[in-house]
Formats: sequence, structure tokens, C-alpha cells
Amino acid sequence: MKAYVYVTLKKTVLDAQGKTVTQALRGMGHTAIADVRQGKYFELTLAEGTDLEAVRPEIEQIAAEVLANPVIEDYRIEFGG
Amino acid sequence: MKAYVYVTLKKTVLDAQGKTVTQALRGMGHTAIADVRQGKYFELTLAEGTDLEAVRPEIEQIAAEVLANPVIEDYRIEFGG
Repeated sequence: MKAYVYVTLKKTVLDAQGKTVTQALRGMGHTAIADVRQGKYFELTLAEGTDLEAVRPEIEQIAAEVLANPVIEDYRIEFGG
Repeated sequence: MKAYVYVTLKKTVLDAQGKTVTQALRGMGHTAIADVRQGKYFELTLAEGTDLEAVRPEIEQIAAEVLANPVIEDYRIEFGG
């Protein structure tokens, strides 16, 4: 059982890394790409026998307090096999 | 129209950042987390009127040659709204 946490900069925050990638791609002739935003991605493997419903608030807390900086970042959580 | 590219280290490559996060979480008492692997995440906004089928091989090429290092990293591409 795994939890996936996706962390991206808020829309209002300048993404310098993403802008650099966008410009590099344009310079290479990839004009189909209008914009790139870069984020982080965490794959959390849960301990065996973990109850999903019980662990959900804990994952939420980890995402908000450890993995993302809520001042400038948004996060999204998914659960999967 | 957007393309999402997820880049992770190959399973066989040591993920030092992920290990550090795992240990930090354990130190904080989050024993439900057995392991963490960290990756990158790119959100590519495609130019208006881009034909998805036409652009698919281009995104594949960008992921393989620019966004990921295929020697040590795997990538996965998704398309969405």
C-alpha cells in the first residue's frame, strides 16, 4: 500500500526552475510547450497491515507539515497499490 | 491541455533524499511509513490547438532526453485537462 504526495508551487509563486525548462525547450524547437511548472513527488510505502482510513489523517499531516511548505506550496495526496 | 511527467530514481538506485525523509518521519513518531522515495514532477501546459496524438511522441522525447536521465531515472507520462 502506497501514498503518493505531489507538491507544487502555488500558481501565484514564480517557478524559476519551470521557466528555465520552458525556455530550454523553446530553444530546442519544442514550440508545442507553452509553459512548464516543476514540482516534487513523494512515494510513501506504508507499513504492512496499515489501515488506510486510520493512516489518512497522518499522511495529510505529514504532507502539510513536513513534505510541503503551505505558505508557497500546494499538495495533493493519492493512495494506490 | 496538459501533460504530466513523473520522474523517479530507478528502484536499484539509492535515494538519499528519500532515506533522509524516511528517517526524519520515523524520528517524529510516524511509524506507519516504511519507506519514502522522492522524485520530480513536471506539469507541461501545451500550446492551444495542439493535437494530442501529434504531440505525444514529442512529449515522450522531451521526457526521455530533457526531463529525465534514463541511466538512473524512470519516467511516466499522463495527459489531462
